[in-house]
Amino acid sequence: MSGNSVSSERPPAVVLLSGGLDSCVTAAVAARDNDLFCLHADYGQRTQSRETRAAGEVARFYGAILRNIDLSHIVVPGSSNLTDRSTPPVAGDLVRTGVPTTYVPFRNANLLAAAVSWAEVIGAGRLFIGVVEEDSSGYPDCREAFLASFQEAINTGTATEATITIVAPLLHLTKGDIIRLGVELQAPLQMTWSCYNDEELACGKCDSCLLRLRGFREVGAQDPLPYRSF
Amino acid sequence: MSGNSVSSERPPAVVLLSGGLDSCVTAAVAARDNDLFCLHADYGQRTQSRETRAAGEVARFYGAILRNIDLSHIVVPGSSNLTDRSTPPVAGDLVRTGVPTTYVPFRNANLLAAAVSWAEVIGAGRLFIGVVEEDSSGYPDCREAFLASFQEAINTGTATEATITIVAPLLHLTKGDIIRLGVELQAPLQMTWSCYNDEELACGKCDSCLLRLRGFREVGAQDPLPYRSF
Repeated sequence: MSGNSVSSERPPAVVLLSGGLDSCVTAAVAARDNDLFCLHADYGQRTQSRETRAAGEVARFYGAILRNIDLSHIVVPGSSNLTDRSTPPVAGDLVRTGVPTTYVPFRNANLLAAAVSWAEVIGAGRLFIGVVEEDSSGYPDCREAFLASFQEAINTGTATEATITIVAPLLHLTKGDIIRLGVELQAPLQMTWSCYNDEELACGKCDSCLLRLRGFREVGAQDPLPYRSF
Repeated sequence: MSGNSVSSERPPAVVLLSGGLDSCVTAAVAARDNDLFCLHADYGQRTQSRETRAAGEVARFYGAILRNIDLSHIVVPGSSNLTDRSTPPVAGDLVRTGVPTTYVPFRNANLLAAAVSWAEVIGAGRLFIGVVEEDSSGYPDCREAFLASFQEAINTGTATEATITIVAPLLHLTKGDIIRLGVELQAPLQMTWSCYNDEELACGKCDSCLLRLRGFREVGAQDPLPYRSF
């Protein structure tokens, strides 16, 4: 891949693709106007291989370039229940306050930084990330204030020729809104994976499953994923 | 390593340690008041193994914990002369303007993000980085404006219990000032490595060698490193 070459008429955009529902719908939004360069990161999640497979399928669906990177250095053993398999399965307690046990410190900053490095080289002007402030679970690096600060870090920390804008189309949507948007854009939601605990049948009990199921209920649609229990 | 445990009376601080002269002097400053947790990153530099060795020796000198991480994902082949061994050696042309060919896009954001993730887990309140704005060579992510923006991203993107402050003690120093400070603090400058091209004898010709040699000349001191030519 050479410097700023863009062979098609659609501008390149980098999309952070976890393999989950939110990033899939984000890719669907980005794909309306851009050629997609998807970045997927492994950092030792409990369901890492399932998520990587999901990201691969979604990227293929959109004819995107996909890069898989290893970000396992951001996790120190024992620091997050999302990555520490020696702790019990991730529970669902959407009503609690504060930062959840699945929080991986400053994860989105690491993801965005890697995405900016790539965007600058391929000449992408937009960087899509599927963070959700409203309906999500208290992760500090999913808030608009964080994205605004990081945007300023991009503006001051990249070469002057580079103009890279963070786009977070889901930031103020509910899970129901996101699913509705995904259905409208014919996003391949059946390819995504959300469960924090299992890789074959979704557990239906962790925060991520509960949020997803609540969203489908809100929309009155059927989640295409197989679940262990409801 | 457990959550916030600090066994000694000195607070923990994370220090980004490249193995070069600047980060060594930064470590010397940090070591006056802190227990050091040093983070070293490889990302495919031409002299990577020499730099890793230097970082290891400096960390040992300060009795620090050292983590080596792999950041090679931030580099796309062909995007930087610092990492692309298929291009000619890094030249020295300190008088040019603009961003140098050795620029690795948004490198310091990736380094800082990884350091913040670690700092948050070990409960470190200070994060030392040896960037130099004045005497350095036009890297956008070495400027104070970038650090200020990134600080804001830390403030908004980490858990509220975490208060992590970037400390850049060399930001407005010249290379001569830095060497003077290093000598004053008895920093192990003989353990550091600066050359962009070679691992046994420093080339004496690249930007990094030229800056270093100019600094030692300015101070009237002898650089302890072996050089190929002057």
